[in-house]
Amino acid sequence: MTTVRMDQLSWVEYARRVSEESPVVFLPCGATEQHGPHLPLGTDALLASALCEDVAARVGGLVAPALSYGYKSQPKCGGGNHFCGTTSLDGQTLIALVRDAVREFARHGVTRLVLVDGHYENQWFVTEGIELALRELGPTAKLQVMRLEHWDFCSEQTLADVFPEGFPGFALEHAAVIETSLMLHYLPNLVRIDLIPNDPPADFPPYDMYPSRTEWVPPSGVLSSAKGSSAEKGARMAGDICNGIAQAVRKEFAL
Amino acid sequence: MTTVRMDQLSWVEYARRVSEESPVVFLPCGATEQHGPHLPLGTDALLASALCEDVAARVGGLVAPALSYGYKSQPKCGGGNHFCGTTSLDGQTLIALVRDAVREFARHGVTRLVLVDGHYENQWFVTEGIELALRELGPTAKLQVMRLEHWDFCSEQTLADVFPEGFPGFALEHAAVIETSLMLHYLPNLVRIDLIPNDPPADFPPYDMYPSRTEWVPPSGVLSSAKGSSAEKGARMAGDICNGIAQAVRKEFAL
Amino acid sequence: MTTVRMDQLSWVEYARRVSEESPVVFLPCGATEQHGPHLPLGTDALLASALCEDVAARVGGLVAPALSYGYKSQPKCGGGNHFCGTTSLDGQTLIALVRDAVREFARHGVTRLVLVDGHYENQWFVTEGIELALRELGPTAKLQVMRLEHWDFCSEQTLADVFPEGFPGFALEHAAVIETSLMLHYLPNLVRIDLIPNDPPADFPPYDMYPSRTEWVPPSGVLSSAKGSSAEKGARMAGDICNGIAQAVRKEFAL
Amino acid sequence: MTTVRMDQLSWVEYARRVSEESPVVFLPCGATEQHGPHLPLGTDALLASALCEDVAARVGGLVAPALSYGYKSQPKCGGGNHFCGTTSLDGQTLIALVRDAVREFARHGVTRLVLVDGHYENQWFVTEGIELALRELGPTAKLQVMRLEHWDFCSEQTLADVFPEGFPGFALEHAAVIETSLMLHYLPNLVRIDLIPNDPPADFPPYDMYPSRTEWVPPSGVLSSAKGSSAEKGARMAGDICNGIAQAVRKEFAL
Amino acid sequence: MTTVRMDQLSWVEYARRVSEESPVVFLPCGATEQHGPHLPLGTDALLASALCEDVAARVGGLVAPALSYGYKSQPKCGGGNHFCGTTSLDGQTLIALVRDAVREFARHGVTRLVLVDGHYENQWFVTEGIELALRELGPTAKLQVMRLEHWDFCSEQTLADVFPEGFPGFALEHAAVIETSLMLHYLPNLVRIDLIPNDPPADFPPYDMYPSRTEWVPPSGVLSSAKGSSAEKGARMAGDICNGIAQAVRKEFAL
Amino acid sequence: MTTVRMDQLSWVEYARRVSEESPVVFLPCGATEQHGPHLPLGTDALLASALCEDVAARVGGLVAPALSYGYKSQPKCGGGNHFCGTTSLDGQTLIALVRDAVREFARHGVTRLVLVDGHYENQWFVTEGIELALRELGPTAKLQVMRLEHWDFCSEQTLADVFPEGFPGFALEHAAVIETSLMLHYLPNLVRIDLIPNDPPADFPPYDMYPSRTEWVPPSGVLSSAKGSSAEKGARMAGDICNGIAQAVRKEFAL
Repeated sequence: MTTVRMDQLSWVEYARRVSEESPVVFLPCGATEQHGPHLPLGTDALLASALCEDVAARVGGLVAPALSYGYKSQPKCGGGNHFCGTTSLDGQTLIALVRDAVREFARHGVTRLVLVDGHYENQWFVTEGIELALRELGPTAKLQVMRLEHWDFCSEQTLADVFPEGFPGFALEHAAVIETSLMLHYLPNLVRIDLIPNDPPADFPPYDMYPSRTEWVPPSGVLSSAKGSSAEKGARMAGDICNGIAQAVRKEFAL
Repeated sequence: MTTVRMDQLSWVEYARRVSEESPVVFLPCGATEQHGPHLPLGTDALLASALCEDVAARVGGLVAPALSYGYKSQPKCGGGNHFCGTTSLDGQTLIALVRDAVREFARHGVTRLVLVDGHYENQWFVTEGIELALRELGPTAKLQVMRLEHWDFCSEQTLADVFPEGFPGFALEHAAVIETSLMLHYLPNLVRIDLIPNDPPADFPPYDMYPSRTEWVPPSGVLSSAKGSSAEKGARMAGDICNGIAQAVRKEFAL
Repeated sequence: MTTVRMDQLSWVEYARRVSEESPVVFLPCGATEQHGPHLPLGTDALLASALCEDVAARVGGLVAPALSYGYKSQPKCGGGNHFCGTTSLDGQTLIALVRDAVREFARHGVTRLVLVDGHYENQWFVTEGIELALRELGPTAKLQVMRLEHWDFCSEQTLADVFPEGFPGFALEHAAVIETSLMLHYLPNLVRIDLIPNDPPADFPPYDMYPSRTEWVPPSGVLSSAKGSSAEKGARMAGDICNGIAQAVRKEFAL
Repeated sequence: MTTVRMDQLSWVEYARRVSEESPVVFLPCGATEQHGPHLPLGTDALLASALCEDVAARVGGLVAPALSYGYKSQPKCGGGNHFCGTTSLDGQTLIALVRDAVREFARHGVTRLVLVDGHYENQWFVTEGIELALRELGPTAKLQVMRLEHWDFCSEQTLADVFPEGFPGFALEHAAVIETSLMLHYLPNLVRIDLIPNDPPADFPPYDMYPSRTEWVPPSGVLSSAKGSSAEKGARMAGDICNGIAQAVRKEFAL
Repeated sequence: MTTVRMDQLSWVEYARRVSEESPVVFLPCGATEQHGPHLPLGTDALLASALCEDVAARVGGLVAPALSYGYKSQPKCGGGNHFCGTTSLDGQTLIALVRDAVREFARHGVTRLVLVDGHYENQWFVTEGIELALRELGPTAKLQVMRLEHWDFCSEQTLADVFPEGFPGFALEHAAVIETSLMLHYLPNLVRIDLIPNDPPADFPPYDMYPSRTEWVPPSGVLSSAKGSSAEKGARMAGDICNGIAQAVRKEFAL
Repeated sequence: MTTVRMDQLSWVEYARRVSEESPVVFLPCGATEQHGPHLPLGTDALLASALCEDVAARVGGLVAPALSYGYKSQPKCGGGNHFCGTTSLDGQTLIALVRDAVREFARHGVTRLVLVDGHYENQWFVTEGIELALRELGPTAKLQVMRLEHWDFCSEQTLADVFPEGFPGFALEHAAVIETSLMLHYLPNLVRIDLIPNDPPADFPPYDMYPSRTEWVPPSGVLSSAKGSSAEKGARMAGDICNGIAQAVRKEFAL
């Protein structure tokens, strides 16, 4: 049986591959966060994992167990942390989690590590976790780390085609067309298309308020409509993302 | 589709169940740790998750995404942290992870929470995470938390039958008969029976040394033989564990 | 003498104003970071402070001493932390700094607090600092906090006029036309127009690498050209920003 | 334009000076703290900065942006943290702030660093920040750090002349003759001589109580009278301090 | 005067012994915790210290001052933290305390360090403290550390003789026959045999509940009866423990 | 047997006294630090404990186990942390240790707590520990805490008599006449008068250098001579200190 999932490999097989193949190890960084009535709470981790497995299969890589909990959801990109079910970490916890994981992969002898973030709010804490691990490992460490948000690999042409009336921007793309289409592509059984809400897109001011003004956010938690999502659009975007990451990985890690 | 997995539910469905049913929420606490040549690195999280899903189905509960990384493996119970593939957290990281998760479940309105630990080394850091969360929540919080190591629910009779030549104790039961049998019961595709090593049981002194004396540990990472493992034994132990937890949950949470 | 600067007021005067006027208190969040050969290292804190003082004068507010050090500069938005002179904080340090300051303003009786961020890399750590302070203060606290990046208040029309050949996006606007023009408006003596470099705009891939690929960044540290900067453009953008923040403050704090 | 202020230099100029001149870098450590009705909240940071600039001009040094927030004011040396306007950091926050700054200056190639403390309560946390940074930098680091409280450089003769009726000790010299005179020397516009209170000197027991016995402290926050303060006295003390620090710097850093 | 107690030696004598003799340094890890009506709150630290002194005398070692406060008492091994007098540390505090101490002994030149734990709840936090210190010291450090719980050195024969009706297990041995007998051997003046309670042994389920179910624990705090304790039994167990540790130390440290 | 030592009391007796008598609880804060060739490493904790027991006997108080490790020794008040045998904590560790202990005494129902510091370097970290505990306990907590350095209770007349040639100040009183005399009074067996060094008093500049200029400190570690120490002087100073603390305690705690 061949698998790209690290948690399904024995340590003997993992150790062999790391030492003989210097594979790219992918670490999916997700969240447990409301994604409207039509997508599951695990969307961010599930999608990041699915994309990682897809890319890993193309580049001979491995996928580590996802970080299933992420930084606190914010109203303007994730609906906000007041939703029931959203289960978030303090910034320092996420920083430490990433730092520890990176440190351990370096100890294993991994030299090519990619953190694939599927939750917008994670990115700076993931960054700091990497920075702290590398500082601790010191200047002689051989580990190189790539960090990315997967949606940034959708090409402009794809976005133009997927959003014929204009792309509303990644900010509002929470539980909307991109995530819903990707889920329809990878995990269609977990999508309830019939429950996609009809809320108009949220309209946020150029600032944040704390405590959150929860009335800014549609009660469904969906920031712009997921209407028009389809498995085909998901397949196309997944193609962009996986090709893009594979290409980036080959270039930066000299595969 | 009915599921016990929180990450497969929408927040709307999760919120409805939490407010209407006060379900028991199970949080599997695992690790990414060597388990010999015949079991996968994810064994602890996979087993804890499988057991949680099994129990949850019996008591109308829900299963939160597992903590897939755990505290540093120690030679005498997990082989030690020097194995390639073992990917561990600092104590403070695990404490914070548990504290944050417990705090969030309390915010959701969850009142019945069970942390099912599948990695021996986790237990005191998980305990501290719960203690810190409850202190922060204050004396008026309605949340009650159960914490357990799943193997402690195997009955004496079962252990006597499974180990006719005498139970070597949980200490040496790393990647051995209990875990291998449970994996054969729940996830047989991930077990390579043909690769079970023949190492004699490890013999440890009543103290620990740091840096680890790695020569104390069999090179395979298996602390006592997994020979004799079977799906049947796994089913029997899984029955004990699930019945036991279900009973405990009904009693303590007055279901 | 009338001043909006908190550090120039005696505590007696500050206390009187807080209790009698419930003024908006502005906390500028800056950095000490390379801004090319033509702008000073203190640009982010200096600009955030100047804008705060400008707005505070309009809304009867007060300006607290700036946070002069910020989170680690990143290549794609600040050139990267490898530049000599860039002097950065760990994420946890900045989180704690903001948390402590917010907690103290709440203790003073301040109910309207605005954190004006002038350093892109700060935003998530500033957010977490606010979140932690509010959690600690509890649900009965009267403090409301606004957080913003000042450039987000430039109107689309202004950006269209300032960048007739198309706005390159805030990402590349480090030490470029916006910051240089704002400095020419507020602190012209600190700008060396003659030293503006001719580097073409940086072209970054949709991912980050750690350790930083410093060759991605122009040696000057300027991510897109500051050519065409002028005090007039600065005045116009400062007008947008100050009007916008003043309006936001009046709306959200019901002044 | 020549400046000693780091925040007014471009990174190019700063980098050139650090590499060519090995200048002494001064980091003023202040606070935002009540200083009676006649001195501003920013006194500690303003004075520390002014003194640093004065010394830096004499020794060819540079002055980094001040730490504007300090450790919690204590009744017996700063009036106590209960005053409105006093805005303080937790000890751990200040420790981390100093540690990060020192680490960064070392990275720049700075080898001569002086932390000039203007807030009595800061000193041990500043010390710990330096200790932690140096431990992290390791025994081969070239950085040497001087730490001082500026008032300790007033000569005995000066104190005898400034306090003809006897020096009450630095403990009670909060917002009193030394600080007021130094402010009259450096920043006279920020002093309101007409508002100097007539409170008799505070009389403290040889212990502290927590929560603070706020009745121990004069309501004005002034621990001994500032009557008799003058710009002349300020000039004389500033001379002592600046000469003393310059001399110390030349001696210890072999300039 | 000859002493094994580090706190009674001058630094000159300590330094001489460390450099000339490479002595084993013992660090007793105790607690301040209820031990029923018949044993004092300091039992864990007092016993760990007494045993360390006994062993140190045999192997030419030294005993550092005990850690007198330990991790939070748990119902099933220490009665629980709700008892008045039990005075416990957070996990992170104990980790840091151990880490700092180990780091310092390494700096002294100590190469043989033994942490003797007398409080069951301490063990994982003590372990993490050692792990963190060794990671910080790096792979070239010469320090080796042994960690142990002292009761694990009682031989099976001794346990069989001391408990003729069957050993109830270390879990219930809190303030019971082992600790009481050891105290009668080492510190009889601190034992009140007349106050030994008659509570039957506690009967705990295979899980923990938080907040603690205090009704699980006998009101006396004694988990199984101390009846039958004697100085003779204490002497015999002390002999096992001291011989065992001495032997372990000689073997592992090649004395 | 009557004792003031908490560690010698059973929890039952401690609980009874706390609830019936509201006794003052004393927590000695010491260090493990070089004290020259004539005093033991434990001097600070031993003296603080002895003084606490002396005072407690006078006011019906109790003495908790001492904190035996303190903050890093500094050259100008303790000789510096480079001495072998000096075993110090990071600032954050000491803060946490004090915070945890204070929190626990409050939980016991203790309302009168006195932290008696015997190590100059501890004071600000002890202060922060108290501040953090009280903030956590909230404004309704009944606990009041006194903090002191014991030597501050020596009367001026006593100092004049003990130092006929003039008191050199507490700064240089490390392992000198005060500490040596107090040890001769309380623990004469631990003093080696014959080994008191003849070093002249250390002469420190008004600043500190890091890394420490160890050549500033006499090789013996004694900052001013202990010649002339006597048990009689110790008794007189102990009398001042104990009377002074007893009086302070009666006044502030309304005994």
